[in-house]
Amino acid sequence: MTPEQVDHLGAAVSGRFGVAVERVPPCPLAEADLPAAAVDPPSQLAAMCRQDDWIRASHTYGRSYRDVVRGHQGTFASAPSFVACPTTEDDVTAVLEWCGAAGVPVVPFGGGSSVVGGVELAGAVSLDLTGLDQVLEVDRTSRAARVQAGVYGPDLEDQLRPHGLTLRHFPQSFECSTLGGWIATRAGGHYATVYTHIDDLVESVRALTPIGVWESRRLPGSGAGPSPDRMLLGSEGTLGVITEAWVRLQDRVRWKASAAARFETFAGGAEAVRALSQSALFPTNCRLLDPGEAATSAGVTDGTAVLVLGFESADHPVDAAMARAVELVGDHGGFLPEGVRGTGPTPDAPGSAGAAEAWRSSFVRAPYTRDGLVQLGVLVETFETAVTWDRFEALHAGVTDAVSRVLGEVCGVGVVTCRFTHAYPDGAAPYFTVMAPARRGGELSQWGDIKTAASEAILANGGTITHHHAVGRDHRPWYDRQRPDPFAVALTSAKHSLDPAGVLNPGVLIGG
Amino acid sequence: MTPEQVDHLGAAVSGRFGVAVERVPPCPLAEADLPAAAVDPPSQLAAMCRQDDWIRASHTYGRSYRDVVRGHQGTFASAPSFVACPTTEDDVTAVLEWCGAAGVPVVPFGGGSSVVGGVELAGAVSLDLTGLDQVLEVDRTSRAARVQAGVYGPDLEDQLRPHGLTLRHFPQSFECSTLGGWIATRAGGHYATVYTHIDDLVESVRALTPIGVWESRRLPGSGAGPSPDRMLLGSEGTLGVITEAWVRLQDRVRWKASAAARFETFAGGAEAVRALSQSALFPTNCRLLDPGEAATSAGVTDGTAVLVLGFESADHPVDAAMARAVELVGDHGGFLPEGVRGTGPTPDAPGSAGAAEAWRSSFVRAPYTRDGLVQLGVLVETFETAVTWDRFEALHAGVTDAVSRVLGEVCGVGVVTCRFTHAYPDGAAPYFTVMAPARRGGELSQWGDIKTAASEAILANGGTITHHHAVGRDHRPWYDRQRPDPFAVALTSAKHSLDPAGVLNPGVLIGG
Repeated sequence: MTPEQVDHLGAAVSGRFGVAVERVPPCPLAEADLPAAAVDPPSQLAAMCRQDDWIRASHTYGRSYRDVVRGHQGTFASAPSFVACPTTEDDVTAVLEWCGAAGVPVVPFGGGSSVVGGVELAGAVSLDLTGLDQVLEVDRTSRAARVQAGVYGPDLEDQLRPHGLTLRHFPQSFECSTLGGWIATRAGGHYATVYTHIDDLVESVRALTPIGVWESRRLPGSGAGPSPDRMLLGSEGTLGVITEAWVRLQDRVRWKASAAARFETFAGGAEAVRALSQSALFPTNCRLLDPGEAATSAGVTDGTAVLVLGFESADHPVDAAMARAVELVGDHGGFLPEGVRGTGPTPDAPGSAGAAEAWRSSFVRAPYTRDGLVQLGVLVETFETAVTWDRFEALHAGVTDAVSRVLGEVCGVGVVTCRFTHAYPDGAAPYFTVMAPARRGGELSQWGDIKTAASEAILANGGTITHHHAVGRDHRPWYDRQRPDPFAVALTSAKHSLDPAGVLNPGVLIGG
Repeated sequence: MTPEQVDHLGAAVSGRFGVAVERVPPCPLAEADLPAAAVDPPSQLAAMCRQDDWIRASHTYGRSYRDVVRGHQGTFASAPSFVACPTTEDDVTAVLEWCGAAGVPVVPFGGGSSVVGGVELAGAVSLDLTGLDQVLEVDRTSRAARVQAGVYGPDLEDQLRPHGLTLRHFPQSFECSTLGGWIATRAGGHYATVYTHIDDLVESVRALTPIGVWESRRLPGSGAGPSPDRMLLGSEGTLGVITEAWVRLQDRVRWKASAAARFETFAGGAEAVRALSQSALFPTNCRLLDPGEAATSAGVTDGTAVLVLGFESADHPVDAAMARAVELVGDHGGFLPEGVRGTGPTPDAPGSAGAAEAWRSSFVRAPYTRDGLVQLGVLVETFETAVTWDRFEALHAGVTDAVSRVLGEVCGVGVVTCRFTHAYPDGAAPYFTVMAPARRGGELSQWGDIKTAASEAILANGGTITHHHAVGRDHRPWYDRQRPDPFAVALTSAKHSLDPAGVLNPGVLIGG
């Protein structure tokens, strides 16, 4: 965002919270606090390593509110010692060998979009994998491709487009995250149902571990023991470095229909989403925004909740599915002031308009807006979870109450809003956004209080500490209470056997 | 089957292979070879244990051809020492504690329908879990239930029916297998696409391990680390004893449509299945039978391949989906001599007829027919795999050739046929059936030669050694070459930490 755009945003925020906000530009890198490196690159790695201030600062954090605040303040206390930039698997192996022998921790780094402290480790080697960015092979018959892990989302889609194929995995971080990062963190895509999680789009994974290459066979399905891929999915760099994957692709969409339904209450909309997710209609989009989110993200200010509903297909018209979905919406008290927008068959049909398009545009812009808010001293953070339908109302009330209370205590004023990012037959993934004026210099402490309150409420009400943001370091206290103890024992043993020197991203998921 | 039914079958087989076959009745239990128990139940377990010949014989094997032959011959050399029949989790814990302390291996036993040597271990304690057979809790809102692991398929459905819900997981072993067995072996259901694997129907799992209770949180989705459930899925009793699971249920079907399409060739039908599976129409049934299977299982004897196609829904009519599927069939050279049978909305609509119904009926009877064939001295075995579409033709030819060759060598005559059990966007699950006259007393050696030839061809052509039959002991030589070595190291370490005494079903999946 330009300074002018930030000031414009500041005026809106001031009006909303009734407090003055002022834009403070970020600390210039030359004035930043960047500790000396604990270790320098050895000669055999020197050619692929960088150690200048910019590269170390840009590999210190992910993109959480806490990270953006610290970057803005110019505090890079946990900077890596240096950044290794491999362009081949042999390079990666060389880095792992040296780190293992020297006992220096190594943190795989893709797009650096972690919001859970997943890439932050003072003095480590940051292993930047974005030099491994090629689609190596395309199997048009099976609709699959062998892809290097360091490719960014847009670059991946650019390389697939000439083949008429798409991964169709669009997390909000799409522009600044990589395939390997998606796999390591079990990323959730933009779509609401069925094939949206990277877990289901992975056909096989290749990873380099200190004890050798871990490569699964390309298979559409298999019952041969516990899935090796599912052990790497979510391993967050603790078991090995993902270098390649075969991924399942789809044909490009030809038919679309979208609608924005309104509900008097969020709870009423939730009942409609439950019916839709249990209908096996498989809507592509099924995002429910509470009245607060509807106002800020979809331009709907009459106090209703908005359900952004969409169907897409590469093979057949989606009118019948949308018609039945609209019936279900009506059965649950919803109404469609703008009707259904249906388009196709054309390859580039936008297929959405009005409130639905406003929401989509806001969704894509959100990460950039957040940086502007930090400059304005506004605390903005998100908490996401998933919970079964029977517990949803209690969880929603519990989290909203707990966060509202702590906002009053530590910020004086603030708002907490909620939307659904994904819907399942047995539950939903509520995603909470918190916004409040922060105290300059007190942001991290305020964030800590809010994060703790939200996480405690999520756990107490039967949710998961994360639905698609991974565990990293920030979620550890709650993850440690959530996962089965014997599973943690098993995973720890597995890690020790793969990484005897304990250098692979220590501190995330398991261990001290 | 009655002796008369077996004789009737024998006449058909004689005609088919041009050899005389004779029914030999099974060896009576009183004359069977059943070794003395290596160990007796300790006093504290005595009340829940049984050691009579019948219970030991009935817990010696699973239900593979090899197992049925040995049972028929009265050879029970690998009988368990005794069978423990717990009715509570405390009972299970007591058995695990004693086995760990005494160093006696323990084999979890559900319905005993393993076809891969998964429950066979001489001198072990067979832990029969079928006393844990209750649906403990039903959450109608989230459509989920907490179910004890030892419940058989039909009993589970009986308990769910009053709630208007169904698990809709119908493996061919449905009548003689249990929920816990399905989870431990990653069972595949009857349905062709989307929600059919037990993996996707599990919301959480509870297992007892020697170091404590492993219980995951009920969640519709989660990105918090590698999935603990996915580590238990396929663990085949090596990591713990599954005692309960929350499973995802569905409403009962109201709309159905079915059709049986014909294709000039199996390869032509495969192209149609590929198009269907990549269409996102999600047919409930999409089983392609080659001309040999079409003749024996669907009564179609004109040399065409048959595609049994079905759509079902609890929520909406399926005519549009079937109509588009029929278009795709036509695009790939298929034709529908019997048209489409569509019914509903009625709760009990059969929804299938003609070739489709003939196939369904044959599918359900198959396990019983097999026992009759063994009495007749006919070798009948199945091999199943999954492979990506680009490799399907080569795999089909490779397996068919290799098995045909070995059939000629060891049986003189025999047939190998193929069908698809499941279809994925990126590949299919071909399922081969072999039938040949065996040499009395030579069955196991003949089976071994055929199994080896088939397994080698599957591996060489990019398939998985099993798509939904698990690894057990029979698939170990090929599984060991298929799974990534570092994964095996990780899994072995995980097992050692959970089962330090090494008593949990040793020999399956990993270890010596």
